[in-house]
Amino acid sequence: MDKIPGIKVYAPATVANVAVGYDILGFAIFGPGDDIKVSQGTEPGLTISMIHNGYNKLPKDPLKNTAGVAALSVMEAIGKSDFPVNFEIIKNMPFASGMGSSAASAVAGAMGINEFFGNPLTKMELLPHAMKGEQVADGAYHADNVAPSLLGGITLIRSNEEHDVIKLPSPEGLYCCLIHPNIKILTADSREILSDKVDLNSFIKQTGNLGAFVASLYRLDLDLLERSLQDVVIEPQRAKLIPHFYDLKEIALSNKALGFSISGAGPSLFALCRNSLDAENVGKGIKAFLKENNIKSTVYISKINNEGAIKY
Amino acid sequence: MDKIPGIKVYAPATVANVAVGYDILGFAIFGPGDDIKVSQGTEPGLTISMIHNGYNKLPKDPLKNTAGVAALSVMEAIGKSDFPVNFEIIKNMPFASGMGSSAASAVAGAMGINEFFGNPLTKMELLPHAMKGEQVADGAYHADNVAPSLLGGITLIRSNEEHDVIKLPSPEGLYCCLIHPNIKILTADSREILSDKVDLNSFIKQTGNLGAFVASLYRLDLDLLERSLQDVVIEPQRAKLIPHFYDLKEIALSNKALGFSISGAGPSLFALCRNSLDAENVGKGIKAFLKENNIKSTVYISKINNEGAIKY
Repeated sequence: MDKIPGIKVYAPATVANVAVGYDILGFAIFGPGDDIKVSQGTEPGLTISMIHNGYNKLPKDPLKNTAGVAALSVMEAIGKSDFPVNFEIIKNMPFASGMGSSAASAVAGAMGINEFFGNPLTKMELLPHAMKGEQVADGAYHADNVAPSLLGGITLIRSNEEHDVIKLPSPEGLYCCLIHPNIKILTADSREILSDKVDLNSFIKQTGNLGAFVASLYRLDLDLLERSLQDVVIEPQRAKLIPHFYDLKEIALSNKALGFSISGAGPSLFALCRNSLDAENVGKGIKAFLKENNIKSTVYISKINNEGAIKY
Repeated sequence: MDKIPGIKVYAPATVANVAVGYDILGFAIFGPGDDIKVSQGTEPGLTISMIHNGYNKLPKDPLKNTAGVAALSVMEAIGKSDFPVNFEIIKNMPFASGMGSSAASAVAGAMGINEFFGNPLTKMELLPHAMKGEQVADGAYHADNVAPSLLGGITLIRSNEEHDVIKLPSPEGLYCCLIHPNIKILTADSREILSDKVDLNSFIKQTGNLGAFVASLYRLDLDLLERSLQDVVIEPQRAKLIPHFYDLKEIALSNKALGFSISGAGPSLFALCRNSLDAENVGKGIKAFLKENNIKSTVYISKINNEGAIKY
């Protein structure tokens, strides 16, 4: 049997929730994300030989690793469970940051196996496998980070159970400024803090904003997007977990951000902007303010990533 | 001064809420609605000489009449408060039916004055005036019926206060079957029955469906529309006000309706369908079932009305 040549895949970081789409909206960016080098292994089945960039705490046992579980699920689906494959995982993004780190791993794992075996499955068919990987890290079977990391663009999840995902259009020029302040909050805390009820009036406002946000993407109407990007349900509850949240929001909006909110469960924050210049100004303003308050931060400036996960 | 020639306007009936857009979505149909004959009056200001079709209970005092208040608001805005104008109102739709009767009156009133004086205002500028009229009947300042009756099509209200209304695309071929069962429920009861809280899980499902519904209109994707048109928040609470609701829903869906729910605050019911034949079959099935259960009903079959209020 000829040896299958090794390949590399990249799955991008993602912003979930996007202010008005708690658990249903997400988008991918360029830059941060997970790379996996996939090569033929020396023993039957999947092994993970290395996890680079200081992620020593992540398990190398494929059954406990997000990328591993996603990959094993694909291998089983395509009848290659016993084929020797090895992963070398390179995490180019912070962990527990609200940037979809576990989703990027799960997507890279599923994508890596599929590319290695010559793409027997479509990206849409990979979705449930990547969701299984994400579930190992997160406990929940959901696609709000997995779908944009895999498919690219701005995605809307109508139903996780039915894998009903819609890729929405991304207006040309739309830039994201993603800020990761070096503070720790856990997704579990970030979920526990949320009320399990939504006021009917807030529900009406939020649905109006969500509907208008979706319409704004199809109309390529950034003014409407700006008016719509207001979270009256989740952000007010989670803002208290992020030091200086409302100061940071004011800095973003005064630097022409179309909207500013919490990325996923936080602590990362994102702004959507009309162009790269606005996004850079937002990033500079926020980084400087955080520094004055003795909080280190990393700023990522990126267009919406319409490709999602790729082999390279 | 030459006498201004009389004109007639029509404002259509509307379906509000549309399953997934409580207080934010609505669409207009052809057929039922309000006609107003506008002519020069004999005394300064607005008079209402007649309200046809058995609506004797509706006040003829313009300050207490929905069409009157909307019209007076327009007359004030264009500096014609003292000009003698008379309305003859012809209501071609049932009252308190969940078909936007008061909104049709308010829109016809605002539109009638504007057309009579040669269109000094745009339709979008008429919106707040029509909303003032609707407020007389309903108590609340909201546009979910007024906007589609005025503008036509399927409309989304991002904000009532900001008059931020988006006209969404209507896929060609989309037909509505609107059924008015001859039973009485009051909007006030229909509102009081609603919990002022929404479960977070229902909120997530409903927002997923709403976002997908808006996307389905832009994509002209009736399969996605069918999957999206599911109200998990309001319908389960209001179904008990409509006798045999779930039987009727089953009849609609088994006759190929894309979705079926309560029109506005009820008791009217609507189905969206792929074509006029499906809509007619849904109407026949439901009418027959209601008749067997000794409930008279009126069935309206219509395309989405993309024009809204017109002079004719």
